[in-house]
Amino acid sequence: MVRSPTGFDRRRRDRKHAVVSDFSLTPDIVNEAVRHHWADTPHLCTDIGPRHAMATQVINQENLRPGGFVPGPTMFSMADVVLWYLSFGTVNRIEPMALTSDLSIRFLRPAQGQKLWARADLDKAGRLMVVGTVKIWVDDAPDRLVATAQGTYVMPQR
Amino acid sequence: MVRSPTGFDRRRRDRKHAVVSDFSLTPDIVNEAVRHHWADTPHLCTDIGPRHAMATQVINQENLRPGGFVPGPTMFSMADVVLWYLSFGTVNRIEPMALTSDLSIRFLRPAQGQKLWARADLDKAGRLMVVGTVKIWVDDAPDRLVATAQGTYVMPQR
Amino acid sequence: MVRSPTGFDRRRRDRKHAVVSDFSLTPDIVNEAVRHHWADTPHLCTDIGPRHAMATQVINQENLRPGGFVPGPTMFSMADVVLWYLSFGTVNRIEPMALTSDLSIRFLRPAQGQKLWARADLDKAGRLMVVGTVKIWVDDAPDRLVATAQGTYVMPQR
Amino acid sequence: MVRSPTGFDRRRRDRKHAVVSDFSLTPDIVNEAVRHHWADTPHLCTDIGPRHAMATQVINQENLRPGGFVPGPTMFSMADVVLWYLSFGTVNRIEPMALTSDLSIRFLRPAQGQKLWARADLDKAGRLMVVGTVKIWVDDAPDRLVATAQGTYVMPQR
Repeated sequence: MVRSPTGFDRRRRDRKHAVVSDFSLTPDIVNEAVRHHWADTPHLCTDIGPRHAMATQVINQENLRPGGFVPGPTMFSMADVVLWYLSFGTVNRIEPMALTSDLSIRFLRPAQGQKLWARADLDKAGRLMVVGTVKIWVDDAPDRLVATAQGTYVMPQR
Repeated sequence: MVRSPTGFDRRRRDRKHAVVSDFSLTPDIVNEAVRHHWADTPHLCTDIGPRHAMATQVINQENLRPGGFVPGPTMFSMADVVLWYLSFGTVNRIEPMALTSDLSIRFLRPAQGQKLWARADLDKAGRLMVVGTVKIWVDDAPDRLVATAQGTYVMPQR
Repeated sequence: MVRSPTGFDRRRRDRKHAVVSDFSLTPDIVNEAVRHHWADTPHLCTDIGPRHAMATQVINQENLRPGGFVPGPTMFSMADVVLWYLSFGTVNRIEPMALTSDLSIRFLRPAQGQKLWARADLDKAGRLMVVGTVKIWVDDAPDRLVATAQGTYVMPQR
Repeated sequence: MVRSPTGFDRRRRDRKHAVVSDFSLTPDIVNEAVRHHWADTPHLCTDIGPRHAMATQVINQENLRPGGFVPGPTMFSMADVVLWYLSFGTVNRIEPMALTSDLSIRFLRPAQGQKLWARADLDKAGRLMVVGTVKIWVDDAPDRLVATAQGTYVMPQR
């Protein structure tokens, strides 16, 4: 994984520094804005930055599939929402009209527990599109993924 | 799309005939069994066969995204459930423990209307896996798809 | 799958008629244009319309995977190219700069035989994007799919 | 991302230590074995472990798409092969009969340059399946991804 030695890296570092120092979104801002559009959202943003976002959700123990497992659509919804937060992070503002364009999800293990967690990492932020990769797990087991996903959000054009 | 001229086709027709005449699942059987496991399911099976299934759902007008659109997870859930019905169809019995292994969905248009419809067609039924393609539309516009999906169900091993 | 009874259907029929009578692309036009950009393409377009395309390829018996199977990338390439043809069909002209945005493929059976076939059907043609579903099979067995895929092409903006 | 405080972590550390100390595959072993099955493979394994693999390939400048870009199928092939290496890593042996079950890929930027690089990270290794996430980039720009993918390999059953 060779990096070019000089100017390329410096330019990147400068730009990254600028992004970090200007970044103003917080989980509280995200949660308040989302609740405004979606009053009974079960999801909570717990971390957000220009290249990642995290979300959590209390698992509703009365809405499980045969076997006692978290339903697939609950995990899809989690992947979808954490990519939505990520799309906010890439532009450093709330964009409620950012819309899912496509999402592929693979279910890895039956999910059982108290809380669902998800983390989205940025693959690419373009003017039109945000692409990210999502990992989903339960409780205190971030290395025992229950689902993995990738998806694309289309950003509204102004 | 060349077909072999003789015996191949006849053998296939015979096999299909056998399958059709033995097929005993009906939408009523599916709906009753699903409600047993998932009392407040919003989905209704409207057609089922060994190679396809259909589902519908009344769109909850109080649970829409900004702009008045059906949420992506609602459409994912629809794709997931119609593939579940399809997995029942391939084995001609209810298999509540058939589990989604992976699903990819592409959202094509904002979805607005009264009823969501989905149709799953079989790509392959194996001993372990059922793969199908899903089309989703709204109301009376089956040629104006709002989403298209493909997914895999893992069948329980006995 | 309810259809509205009257005007809706007639309008659609009229529009379809118009499209069909104006459609001027042929497999020969596609094959000549593609060979201009990609001299040694192994693929041949065998059918094209505003909502579908077909392709075939002679299977290179010296480039098989352990077990004697067609390599996955050969099938991906086939899916990719038949969606490219489909993107031409949707605009009724050759668009060599139409680019794959994303593609998901599921391999269903080991593929062995003389010729690979693929058919792409349109899910949606928008100004920016073309989404289609692809079925791939071998020789004279269009009902024994070896792969199924869905993908998105981005159309160049003029 | 809360971790349980005590025993859980220690057990995991012990198991990881065991895995690392027993791991015997090397890029040379992988490359020699792959060349045995696939003499003219353009790919080279550059790193392998129980939870990751890396691959590289010299970009053939005479096989580019209109605009001078690396063809999508070349990137798909790279994603497919680095997941194959990863499947070897998860079982610490060469498994030429590990087969791609499904793969979804998103193309992020036009790819131009001298060498293509790919890294696969493990999402889950089961007895039947290996699921991983792949990042692809060009030359010395691992933070400017040209493609991102996820896929599943089916492991042969003994």
